[in-house]
Amino acid sequence: MQQRSEETHSHILESAYQLFSRNGYEATSVADICQSAGVSKGAFYHHFPTKHAIFLELLESWLAGLDAGFQSARQETHNVPQAILQMATLAGNVVQSTDVKLSIILEFWTQASRDPSIWNTAIAPYRRYQEYFAALIQEGIDESSFRKEIDPHAAARALVSLAVGLLMQAVFDPQSVNWAHEVHHGIEFMLQGLQSHA
Amino acid sequence: MQQRSEETHSHILESAYQLFSRNGYEATSVADICQSAGVSKGAFYHHFPTKHAIFLELLESWLAGLDAGFQSARQETHNVPQAILQMATLAGNVVQSTDVKLSIILEFWTQASRDPSIWNTAIAPYRRYQEYFAALIQEGIDESSFRKEIDPHAAARALVSLAVGLLMQAVFDPQSVNWAHEVHHGIEFMLQGLQSHA
Repeated sequence: MQQRSEETHSHILESAYQLFSRNGYEATSVADICQSAGVSKGAFYHHFPTKHAIFLELLESWLAGLDAGFQSARQETHNVPQAILQMATLAGNVVQSTDVKLSIILEFWTQASRDPSIWNTAIAPYRRYQEYFAALIQEGIDESSFRKEIDPHAAARALVSLAVGLLMQAVFDPQSVNWAHEVHHGIEFMLQGLQSHA
Repeated sequence: MQQRSEETHSHILESAYQLFSRNGYEATSVADICQSAGVSKGAFYHHFPTKHAIFLELLESWLAGLDAGFQSARQETHNVPQAILQMATLAGNVVQSTDVKLSIILEFWTQASRDPSIWNTAIAPYRRYQEYFAALIQEGIDESSFRKEIDPHAAARALVSLAVGLLMQAVFDPQSVNWAHEVHHGIEFMLQGLQSHA
C-alpha cells in the first residue's frame, strides 16, 4: 500500500512535468494533471496541497542533483576559486541538458512574484545559494585566494546574479553561443576580480 | 488630424501600460486596452498591428531613456571602466524607479520565447546591448584599461549577463537589499577582473 502510494506520487509528478514542459506552468490545470496521470482529484490532493507544491517538489529534486555536484566539486578541488569554476562547469552542463526546462522555472517565478503566500517558499532556494556562496567566499578569503577587504555577502550576490543572468541568456537565446563555455568564461572574469594579486 | 492621431496613439500606449502593470501582460487583452482607452478595435489596429507591437514600443521608449544616459556617461568620464560604472549606477536607478515594471518585461519575454514569429524582434534590444558593450570593452582594451588578451565579446556577454541577473534579483527580491548599491558592487567586481594590473 505504501509502495503504491509512492508510485502514485511519482506518477503525478512525472505527468505534471510533461504537461508543464509542453504547455507551460500557468496553462496546466490540476484537472489536466489528474487526467494525464489517470488519478482522481481526491488522490491528487492527498499527495499535493496545490499545483505550486508540485512545482516546488520538481525544483527541489533538480536542485538536489546540483547540490550533490557542488559538494563533490568542493571536495575534489584544492582551493575555493577552483571549486567555484568546477561548480560553474556543472551548472553549465545542467543548463545544456534538456531535462530541466528553465523556461518553466522562469514562468513559475514570474507567477509566484505576484503571490505573497507562496513567494517565501519559491525564493527559498535562491536565498540558500546566496548563503552558501557567501560562506564559500569567506573560506576563499581565509585561504588567501580572495582579497580580505571583500564583503563575502556582496560578492556572493554578484556571483549568484551572474549565474542567474547566464541562465536567463541560456533560456532566452539558447542557439547563439556555447553556454557551458560562456558560463566558464563569465565566472572566470568575476573570480579574477575577487582574487588576491599577490 | 495628425495631432489627434498622435494623441490616440499615446493614449492607447498609456492605457496598455496601466493594464499590463496592474494585471500582467498575458491577462490583458486587446479588448481590455480598447475599453480602457475608449477607442474602437478599428482605431487600435490602425495604430498597432498586435499587442506585442504595443509592448515593443513601450520597451523601446524605456530603453531610449537608458541609451541617452549611457551616451552621457561615456562623454562625461575619462576611461571605459569609469563609464561602465556610471552606466551601472544609471541602470540601478532605473531598476529602483517604479516607472518601468520589470516583471512585465520578464513576462513578455517568457511569452515571446515560445513564439518564434516575434522572438527575433523581442530579443533585438538584448543583442544590441551585447554589441554595444563588446565595442566599449574593445575601447577599454585599446586605452589599456583592460587586459589585451580579453575577448571583448565574451566579456560583453558576461557583463550583460551580470546586469540581467542583477535585474532579476531586483524583480524577484526587491526588498532584500539596496539594488543601486548592489549593481555598483557587482559591476565593480567584474571590472576588476577585466582590468590590467599594471
